[in-house]
Amino acid sequence: MKTYLECIPCFFRQALDAARIAGASQEIQKRILDELGQILPGISLNASPPEMGGIIHELVKKMTKKNDPYKEIKEESNRLALGVYDHLKKKVQESKDHLFTAVELAIAGNIIDYGVKNSLNIHKEMERILNIENKIIKKEKIAFFNFLDFKKTLNDSETILYLADNAGETVFDRILIEEIKALYDGKKIIYAVKGKPIINDALVEDARACGIDQIAEVISSGLDVPGTIIDLCSKGFKEIYIHADMVISKGQGNFEALSEGKRPIFFLFMAKCPVVVEELGCHLRDIILLYHSPKK
Amino acid sequence: MKTYLECIPCFFRQALDAARIAGASQEIQKRILDELGQILPGISLNASPPEMGGIIHELVKKMTKKNDPYKEIKEESNRLALGVYDHLKKKVQESKDHLFTAVELAIAGNIIDYGVKNSLNIHKEMERILNIENKIIKKEKIAFFNFLDFKKTLNDSETILYLADNAGETVFDRILIEEIKALYDGKKIIYAVKGKPIINDALVEDARACGIDQIAEVISSGLDVPGTIIDLCSKGFKEIYIHADMVISKGQGNFEALSEGKRPIFFLFMAKCPVVVEELGCHLRDIILLYHSPKK
Repeated sequence: MKTYLECIPCFFRQALDAARIAGASQEIQKRILDELGQILPGISLNASPPEMGGIIHELVKKMTKKNDPYKEIKEESNRLALGVYDHLKKKVQESKDHLFTAVELAIAGNIIDYGVKNSLNIHKEMERILNIENKIIKKEKIAFFNFLDFKKTLNDSETILYLADNAGETVFDRILIEEIKALYDGKKIIYAVKGKPIINDALVEDARACGIDQIAEVISSGLDVPGTIIDLCSKGFKEIYIHADMVISKGQGNFEALSEGKRPIFFLFMAKCPVVVEELGCHLRDIILLYHSPKK
Repeated sequence: MKTYLECIPCFFRQALDAARIAGASQEIQKRILDELGQILPGISLNASPPEMGGIIHELVKKMTKKNDPYKEIKEESNRLALGVYDHLKKKVQESKDHLFTAVELAIAGNIIDYGVKNSLNIHKEMERILNIENKIIKKEKIAFFNFLDFKKTLNDSETILYLADNAGETVFDRILIEEIKALYDGKKIIYAVKGKPIINDALVEDARACGIDQIAEVISSGLDVPGTIIDLCSKGFKEIYIHADMVISKGQGNFEALSEGKRPIFFLFMAKCPVVVEELGCHLRDIILLYHSPKK
């Protein structure tokens, strides 16, 4: 997805939010925005929003001298999500279609996103996720929910690359991966996280904290931008990305980075901004399971 | 009121909205945002938001070569507001306290504001205004509604300076001015509009189109910024501003520009942005009649 002009005011809002989370003084906050203004003319609208996200957060890190401003937030998200793990598991097990419910929950978990919303109240969001799940189950028609394709591709694939998004959300991913493994024998699942701190995106330590390493191979994409921009990934990751039989991509940032690519991908995310809503033709906060299949 | 850091993302949003209303191409829109980024470091947070508003809209005018991008919108607002004039008059005449209702309507009319909202649907807003009016009447407690002070000061004053805000809203102002004149004999009312086009702010032509010139002396402040920044006003206007017995100031922009001044003012506006809500401690969309009285 290309950058829309509407993304530009949002970049300044993101920079301000990130500066505050990093504990920057009022003066440093202003200087970060000023600096962003200075580099703005060099930004092409042909770049995807996560590319700009990378630049913004690099700037915040440099000017606040904080390498991982969201560290405590990520730890708290993991802790809280692990706290509802048993409850989520029960929901899946009590549902008619375990895989369907696990997919829904994995997408609902994508609500944990600090790039979009700074003042996220984790406790509240967790409650909302549990409610959303109930609502979805009751929903008869869901836009962009290519579940049958998802199930078929899962069945036909040996190697599955799962692109993680945020810390905490990793627990919801774990539930989906466990369900996949329970349904299908012998699938090789590779769970890819970011290589360096970027917003509250999951790192190897978050995947481990949430127990993903017990059920999948955890790798790093090498990235420090909030979306999988293939050109910036490590060589090893690129190989896996190209050759995987199936790619499950979590989060809006990964959608923004990969939606114009040529390889088939299943995008699982919550539509969180008006620009993505326009791009897709969906509604804000819609639960999306989109089969991006250029050859189709 | 000083500029908050939160205003900065909003400045870019305003610039984009204005560029689009002026019919700028995608390329020009981007160049306007780039240019705004370049001048950002020179902007002090000690300036009030309307000062920056002036700079933004000057930039849009220069780069789109359109001197009055909101001209059609203003004409349409006047036309639509004149269309509900009889209805509003009837509402006032049927109410228990004519002045109170006229004040409420004048504030409700402040919803017509293109600086805050670009995609304003005038028809819809007019309907909302009429509904708001019904709601307000029923509201028992209204925050920041210093009506008794307003009435007393009105009674004690000979010369009243009325600072206009937007075109269309002028019809709502007319109803309040007519009510003041019906209640109090011999008041001299001066209605001040902007000197040059700025967003959809009323000019002399709008005041005339809405019949204000029949009931008050219409003057220009000389301004081309979206708020009465005294230092930028004409010498003649400054004299009137200093010596008027009472100042009635419409709109958020005038509040932002004058809230730190030393002269007593009645601010009538709808709280439309989170920053003003924080500054006042009110709620979004609250109807405000605030007696700013530094000596009090």
